[in-house]
Amino acid sequence: MERLTAEIRAFAEERDWQQFHTPKNLTMALAGEVGELLAEFQWLTPEQSAEVMSDPEAGARVKAEIGDVMIYLTRLADVLGVDLVEVALMKLAEAAGRYPVAEARGSAEKRRATDNRGVAGS
Amino acid sequence: MERLTAEIRAFAEERDWQQFHTPKNLTMALAGEVGELLAEFQWLTPEQSAEVMSDPEAGARVKAEIGDVMIYLTRLADVLGVDLVEVALMKLAEAAGRYPVAEARGSAEKRRATDNRGVAGS
Amino acid sequence: MERLTAEIRAFAEERDWQQFHTPKNLTMALAGEVGELLAEFQWLTPEQSAEVMSDPEAGARVKAEIGDVMIYLTRLADVLGVDLVEVALMKLAEAAGRYPVAEARGSAEKRRATDNRGVAGS
Amino acid sequence: MERLTAEIRAFAEERDWQQFHTPKNLTMALAGEVGELLAEFQWLTPEQSAEVMSDPEAGARVKAEIGDVMIYLTRLADVLGVDLVEVALMKLAEAAGRYPVAEARGSAEKRRATDNRGVAGS
Repeated sequence: MERLTAEIRAFAEERDWQQFHTPKNLTMALAGEVGELLAEFQWLTPEQSAEVMSDPEAGARVKAEIGDVMIYLTRLADVLGVDLVEVALMKLAEAAGRYPVAEARGSAEKRRATDNRGVAGS
Repeated sequence: MERLTAEIRAFAEERDWQQFHTPKNLTMALAGEVGELLAEFQWLTPEQSAEVMSDPEAGARVKAEIGDVMIYLTRLADVLGVDLVEVALMKLAEAAGRYPVAEARGSAEKRRATDNRGVAGS
Repeated sequence: MERLTAEIRAFAEERDWQQFHTPKNLTMALAGEVGELLAEFQWLTPEQSAEVMSDPEAGARVKAEIGDVMIYLTRLADVLGVDLVEVALMKLAEAAGRYPVAEARGSAEKRRATDNRGVAGS
Repeated sequence: MERLTAEIRAFAEERDWQQFHTPKNLTMALAGEVGELLAEFQWLTPEQSAEVMSDPEAGARVKAEIGDVMIYLTRLADVLGVDLVEVALMKLAEAAGRYPVAEARGSAEKRRATDNRGVAGS
């Protein structure tokens, strides 16, 4: 991850693009790329979506879109001084408290962070 | 990254949530979280967005949303068998070819992948 | 539609919010609300999504999110001087040319605007 | 609006595409198109975004993307049996209560629906 972060930073600096890389713009760019990723799956059934990587063309497009999403997310995190893996692990731990295994097993029912029904809290 | 991927996979399996984690659903969840991230910046000026981390409350919300985005992106990549850092580096290399430093410096003008104006191609 | 456009404009002007309603910001706000709408469907199967309006709570949330999306889309169109219904009819006519009934029936295969395979063009 | 709704419905039925038009898929398609709209503004300053319609090419792309967003939003509302203008007016009225003119004037500070600070409630 540190290599990717450094290479994206160098890519931007070499082209004098830091001026465009405000968090506001990077978040929009990230959302734009996620939109392209969504478009790859929008007409597929859930089952077809699980097989998408077996189709060479569709699979290549999905990989490309995921690559673009990761580039902008990494750049956004770098510009904001946020450690991607660290904040993800932090939120995962929170979710583990909010959805204890015994209660959450098999259910997609959402528990909002302010919901105290039987969980350790957020 | 491998640790994060493994922990998210374990989190999902312990709760029998793999059934919900089709690529179609995970892409929607990713987009939903990116939407929450966008909302943190939507009314800020670009300058305000660059200072968002100095505000304890806004900064905490931004970190939380980035964490959620990273969780779903990592899980989606895992389910699809895609290496996040690898595809990002691949796309970055493509972009370096499409936007050579000498030509791209300072300009945000987009070059589409099929555009051969003075670039090495995608 | 004209009434809605006028009421949203009045709502923004009464609160001196035009300053925040740049097309850039409005597009971000629109995307943020679409993210909330996605979240209502992300774990549902396609069949469950078709029944969402039968659940009073989920149905109410879906209506609320659609309302917010329509508000920002209408405001964005107003600020840009775009007629929503007119541009939609225009794009629909284009799509009708790109996907003639005889060829497109039953297939979700995408035809890009630059694709001339048997269609009248975009 | 009724004409647009009817024409989109006919367009889908003639091509036997109702099978693809589950609310889940339509919401993803809507989000994908909003992503394309975001991409038109992502590198622009707020001021440049306000002038986008003066650029013939950029303006045409923005109109096209807005058209696509409106098509999918209208189709989603039709499939769910939701009246777009009605739910937008409903949410606008709610927002008027949550952000009374005297208190909200000039400020973008968000008030969550469950927040009772000086407002009539949501």
